[in-house]
Amino acid sequence: MNNRMIAYVIGRILLTEAALLLFPLLVAVLYGESAAPFLAPALLLVLCGLAMSAKKPRSTALYARDGLAVVALAWICVSLFGALPFVLSGDIPHYVDAFFETVSGFTTTGSSILTAVEPLSRGGLFWRSFTHWVGGMGVLVFVMAILPMSDGHGMHLLRAEVPGPSVGKLVSRMSDTAKILYGIYFVMTVVEIVLLLVGGMPLFDAMVHAFGTAGTGGFSCRNLSIGAYDNPYFDIVIGTFMLLFGINFNLYYFLLIRRFRDVFRSEELRAYALIVAAAVTAIALNISHLYEGFAVSLRHAFFQVSSVITTTGYATVDFNAWPTFSKTILVVLMFVGACAGSTGGGIKVARIVILTKTSLCDMRKMLHPNAVATVRFEGKPLGDRNIRSVHLFLTVYLLVFTGSCLLLSLEHMDLVTTFTAVASCMNNIGPGLELVGPMGNFSAFSSWSKLLLSFDMLAGRLEIFPILLLFAPSIWKHKLPAKRT
Amino acid sequence: MNNRMIAYVIGRILLTEAALLLFPLLVAVLYGESAAPFLAPALLLVLCGLAMSAKKPRSTALYARDGLAVVALAWICVSLFGALPFVLSGDIPHYVDAFFETVSGFTTTGSSILTAVEPLSRGGLFWRSFTHWVGGMGVLVFVMAILPMSDGHGMHLLRAEVPGPSVGKLVSRMSDTAKILYGIYFVMTVVEIVLLLVGGMPLFDAMVHAFGTAGTGGFSCRNLSIGAYDNPYFDIVIGTFMLLFGINFNLYYFLLIRRFRDVFRSEELRAYALIVAAAVTAIALNISHLYEGFAVSLRHAFFQVSSVITTTGYATVDFNAWPTFSKTILVVLMFVGACAGSTGGGIKVARIVILTKTSLCDMRKMLHPNAVATVRFEGKPLGDRNIRSVHLFLTVYLLVFTGSCLLLSLEHMDLVTTFTAVASCMNNIGPGLELVGPMGNFSAFSSWSKLLLSFDMLAGRLEIFPILLLFAPSIWKHKLPAKRT
Repeated sequence: MNNRMIAYVIGRILLTEAALLLFPLLVAVLYGESAAPFLAPALLLVLCGLAMSAKKPRSTALYARDGLAVVALAWICVSLFGALPFVLSGDIPHYVDAFFETVSGFTTTGSSILTAVEPLSRGGLFWRSFTHWVGGMGVLVFVMAILPMSDGHGMHLLRAEVPGPSVGKLVSRMSDTAKILYGIYFVMTVVEIVLLLVGGMPLFDAMVHAFGTAGTGGFSCRNLSIGAYDNPYFDIVIGTFMLLFGINFNLYYFLLIRRFRDVFRSEELRAYALIVAAAVTAIALNISHLYEGFAVSLRHAFFQVSSVITTTGYATVDFNAWPTFSKTILVVLMFVGACAGSTGGGIKVARIVILTKTSLCDMRKMLHPNAVATVRFEGKPLGDRNIRSVHLFLTVYLLVFTGSCLLLSLEHMDLVTTFTAVASCMNNIGPGLELVGPMGNFSAFSSWSKLLLSFDMLAGRLEIFPILLLFAPSIWKHKLPAKRT
Repeated sequence: MNNRMIAYVIGRILLTEAALLLFPLLVAVLYGESAAPFLAPALLLVLCGLAMSAKKPRSTALYARDGLAVVALAWICVSLFGALPFVLSGDIPHYVDAFFETVSGFTTTGSSILTAVEPLSRGGLFWRSFTHWVGGMGVLVFVMAILPMSDGHGMHLLRAEVPGPSVGKLVSRMSDTAKILYGIYFVMTVVEIVLLLVGGMPLFDAMVHAFGTAGTGGFSCRNLSIGAYDNPYFDIVIGTFMLLFGINFNLYYFLLIRRFRDVFRSEELRAYALIVAAAVTAIALNISHLYEGFAVSLRHAFFQVSSVITTTGYATVDFNAWPTFSKTILVVLMFVGACAGSTGGGIKVARIVILTKTSLCDMRKMLHPNAVATVRFEGKPLGDRNIRSVHLFLTVYLLVFTGSCLLLSLEHMDLVTTFTAVASCMNNIGPGLELVGPMGNFSAFSSWSKLLLSFDMLAGRLEIFPILLLFAPSIWKHKLPAKRT
């Protein structure tokens, strides 16, 4: 482990977080609130950041192992510091609660321990939603996009942070790739804000909800989430943008450089569209007796499916009151998740497609042992190593999920609450069912459980391995090179 | 596909089933009940069996594909015919219900559509439990053990029918292996019957419960299952025998031939013992406030853990009323299941061990990419092919499970009932939670759902692939060899 380089990178990330705190600080000042809750943590971050990154280490090499450690530690650090404003402003007095809320923000989960969000300070509400926007595309991708960094080791960081089974460099330089991704992300967010303003949403609300949509997070500034506006126009704009932010961002880059065929041939995109269409139709039919007119059912089905599959978590209605069939579909979608390379969580459509195709191919081989069969995905044959890594992800995902359910069940909530709380946090969705349903929250859990669920949110957002490997003794064992002194 | 040979083998299986019906017929006569409900189906079976197996086909070759088809079709046929006595005797008037109950019997699930079993005829009760005993070790293994059959193609049948990721021939001749397995199985069943008689259980009840234990089935002749006797001695005898029947039978053979080291070194056995011990301790502590004295809690925890992990499904108490932590442990154990090569269902301890070890090995490789690491199980290195087949099983298992939950949720039962009904049937356990809990039953489901759950029971018992591949168009496409005429 190159500990000095790891400290150096994390130091720069802390400096970036200090800069990010200036935005909510500005909001607080504009609304006549105290600036101190943001100024003090920002100064602390500058001090720590400068101390850690004052001197560039001689060896800047970062190996795969270091990349995993950097990503995990960086996410934990930004959450630890990011929780301070909530405590200082009194919005969330208990530190563990504030930490849970901040992890939920950065990991774009959107689970909340707050029973009501409307009493919060404007600055606090803005920071809460802004963490979604920053965490959506990735804290490190963001740092790479704005700070110059020597290339070569950037790939390890990007691979460890961007969701999905594989990361392609769009262009040869890593930092350019990060800039392109953030550029697209920024423009799409601005377009959504404008569309929401056009519909008559106040600027503050429009920004909060655009951040929540872009990061597929789900924090709102209204207690009733998007349902508070009861405006079909907002449902359609936000529902559509949630789906758009759930698509692999590489495809938008292909659109920009006019590689249209690559977009329309994308297997993952087609599977994603198919799953959404099937789920919306099935739920709309299943809930049609609950609402007046099929159009209303269709609108609610579309919004909730879009919200759950992209793991955003906004709600226009209390889907906990829907029939079992609809709820089961939503629970399944929680696990499916959005596309790889998007801001969404879950297992990812790409992995589901790869798992299904591999299984069909292997079963065909059972019937015809001599047949030659290769699994292809997005037009390319998948090697055994790629398939093994998807299987590895599925297995470890299930093990962590099972372990978390067992630990959380010690709280003695009902089974559905326990199961969907873990599912919701690990897939970075936000609401689950029953006590943690769209109209509920996570305040009833103990501090230990909040830390457990924070771990699950981080594990889900970083696709498990970076966070899990922090617990491997061997990651800490390796000595620095002999020429240290 | 060698259709003629498939028909020939199934014909012989039907003849065997006719012979098996003589046992409940005898019981019916002894209790002064009508023999007709067993005699008529037996005669029908003889007619069909003789018609199908009258002439031995010229080509007796059976390939892997044929093996899968034979096993799936054989299990469906014995269930279709095996349901007739229940309808004819009036014990279960509706054919779909009787089919569900028979599939539940042969697959050693133990799920019942009956609201009360005590009013059933003695012959019917005996047949119901006897199907557990026959299905436990495998219908085809049974046929192979008692009927002479040319060797060589037997392996495909055994591999498709015996639970677990791998089947070892104990001795060189297939039919001898089948005889040894059934011999051990028979002796253990007799020992259990004797021990139950010693404790004062009536002979009929002792046989019924020994059949249910041996096959890890769970049908009882009492409405309150083993709880009806309220006798700690029975709890301990049956609890212990359930655990014993959940162990790989190869290990008993090793004991017989004095290869003690192979038994005590068995990784699967040690993992199984560890899981049982941990689960019993955790649950006993968790439920200690519900019962008088820790010994009582320990006894109930031991019995229920033993019943659920071996997928038997007997109950001494209503564990649906236990705290969430205990229920969550039981739900996890439902999926773990018993050892490979035993009569139990579920994913199997061997697969869980292989999945965990493979994941740890692959994660170690993430940290140390150049390290050479092989996964070893039971002292032997596991090839990539073996690991891939375990991953395949897990993936297809999850896909079938998810699909079944979605279809069953159309019934609009609550989520826990839906989820645990599928889990219980696919893992061949019997009871689930809520409506299908230990004191509930499956009578509330529609006929379609009963057929779906029957499919799940068969898929679970035959480890999915034989049943699933019946739906592959290519299994039916292949023409007979040209020299057919």
